[in-house]
Amino acid sequence: MIPHGTVEVQTGCAHIDLCGGGVINLGELGEFGLIGALESWLPSGPTVLTGIGDDAAVLVAPDGRVVATTDFLLEGRHFRRDWSSSSDVGHKAAARSLADVAAMGARPTGLLVALAAPADLAVSWIRGFTQGLAAECARAGASVAGGDTSRATSVLLAVTGLGDLSGLGPVLRSGARPGDVVAVAGTLGRAAAGLALLTAGLTAPGSLVRAQLRPSPPYDAGPEAARLGATSMIDVSDGLLADLGHIADASDVLVDVSSAAVKDPLIRTHCGDTAELSCVLTGGEDHSLVATFPVGVDLPPRWKLIGSVRSGHGVTVDGKPYPGPPGWDHFRG
Amino acid sequence: MIPHGTVEVQTGCAHIDLCGGGVINLGELGEFGLIGALESWLPSGPTVLTGIGDDAAVLVAPDGRVVATTDFLLEGRHFRRDWSSSSDVGHKAAARSLADVAAMGARPTGLLVALAAPADLAVSWIRGFTQGLAAECARAGASVAGGDTSRATSVLLAVTGLGDLSGLGPVLRSGARPGDVVAVAGTLGRAAAGLALLTAGLTAPGSLVRAQLRPSPPYDAGPEAARLGATSMIDVSDGLLADLGHIADASDVLVDVSSAAVKDPLIRTHCGDTAELSCVLTGGEDHSLVATFPVGVDLPPRWKLIGSVRSGHGVTVDGKPYPGPPGWDHFRG
Repeated sequence: MIPHGTVEVQTGCAHIDLCGGGVINLGELGEFGLIGALESWLPSGPTVLTGIGDDAAVLVAPDGRVVATTDFLLEGRHFRRDWSSSSDVGHKAAARSLADVAAMGARPTGLLVALAAPADLAVSWIRGFTQGLAAECARAGASVAGGDTSRATSVLLAVTGLGDLSGLGPVLRSGARPGDVVAVAGTLGRAAAGLALLTAGLTAPGSLVRAQLRPSPPYDAGPEAARLGATSMIDVSDGLLADLGHIADASDVLVDVSSAAVKDPLIRTHCGDTAELSCVLTGGEDHSLVATFPVGVDLPPRWKLIGSVRSGHGVTVDGKPYPGPPGWDHFRG
Repeated sequence: MIPHGTVEVQTGCAHIDLCGGGVINLGELGEFGLIGALESWLPSGPTVLTGIGDDAAVLVAPDGRVVATTDFLLEGRHFRRDWSSSSDVGHKAAARSLADVAAMGARPTGLLVALAAPADLAVSWIRGFTQGLAAECARAGASVAGGDTSRATSVLLAVTGLGDLSGLGPVLRSGARPGDVVAVAGTLGRAAAGLALLTAGLTAPGSLVRAQLRPSPPYDAGPEAARLGATSMIDVSDGLLADLGHIADASDVLVDVSSAAVKDPLIRTHCGDTAELSCVLTGGEDHSLVATFPVGVDLPPRWKLIGSVRSGHGVTVDGKPYPGPPGWDHFRG
């Protein structure tokens, strides 16, 4: 929502009054008006040395290395404008990339956001979107540092997350060793349960629906895991079994998950027994962090033990193969 | 084109034979098969510490700061698959972001590429695209370090360029001062002339059409300009007058361009007098670098003097306002 009062945006030679002057969509605002608005709506923090408005951003990288990841959020595929508020979309866009940064054990520093949209998209939608982006970046300690704008027939987003390793090695997918324990920080399956509820036309309970619309990754658990000596880590975006499968493949180990440890009574209550197990094992988009640690590491309470690493290949549940697809494949799904 | 012989791609537990096994499109390859293929087709260089295949990439940032920029390339808007080969699209995608990095005075180090495509897109198209990406990255001294894949009804690309400032300050748009000279490295207007030719159904002369399909920014001129003390710099992506307008606005100066200095006989020969001036002054997408330097800097020959900086506001041509739109606006254009 555009705040009451007048927002004056400097756009080259002209000032555009976004509230009083009748500028209501992107076609009227124009590309350079939009860039000016984004600049005023997304103030940069201490990690950003040169922010929105130049050819590129400049961010701090005190470690001498930079962690970088990029992700699409495409309307109709990753979000629906009739389900998600513009602020929800901003939160989700930031979370999707910044969780990947945290999953390397890095501290998020910045976000670049490429936005393509129809010319008739309301400027108020963009305003809400930037509020969600900024709020989620603030949760992670990062700022929006730059981006790109273009025109498209639907809202297309590509978000790039950047981060700093603070002197530690990146936590890769390839370091899990037989004997390690598997632990997760954050929820499992709630985003998938929320999607199932929305698909059924329901909007409650809020805690499940919100998990789908506005995931809330535990960013600081990423650097925490690195400090604790995590041997591998990944964010749960495709589904727990699929993502643990990436660790199993990269580390050449077998990962076994305890179904009792991952069950979630809230999901069971609202979605039933069968959906509960399917959601927690194969539902993505919670953007929680799952990591392996050497036995004996004293894990803080938010890290919940859910399994173990053994010699072998692939992922099992309670020692047995899971009889279904482990997660999402964009081209086959 | 897929090379003759067998390309074996490791994709989780399975090996996919991309040539002999009948895998011809993305739907058959699947998302994780595609990621495996991209990993094998895009070997990373010395600037990439962790490349494709983890949650995020890790790149060198020896300066302690990182330059970062992101850009869309959308089918139908930024390229057409019937005009551009897949390799052309790869070159253009890399050039678009890496030129922005160079325009800050930075040395390009890496590229992240988000690719969304229809499930029936041929794997051979992706192969050609990666060849173009890799070749253009090599011209700039960078490597593809990571990305994202998704499904869409047309080819959508979002490319993020990263770079290192090597101890110098970034060259911003805001540093031009009255008395500076304006100089350009690279061609002006040829990409626009090439677009006009393609739109008219022509494919010759190759030097103009190629400028549109496969721009060739002078990347090393960016750090060179920084070392020479450039006071401001931008890459010509929206059009010379529009881009100099960004410098004039940010620096609060007037920039005057000499039309005699920017004319290009090759464009005049093939497109006529009127189109020549319009192309060189308002045509974007050459991704040349235009910079301002203090008077008296001994510029290498590839920097061609094209104007001067004065007190005032905006951009003039031969001392007069230009009677037309200065360049491209995505939402109004």
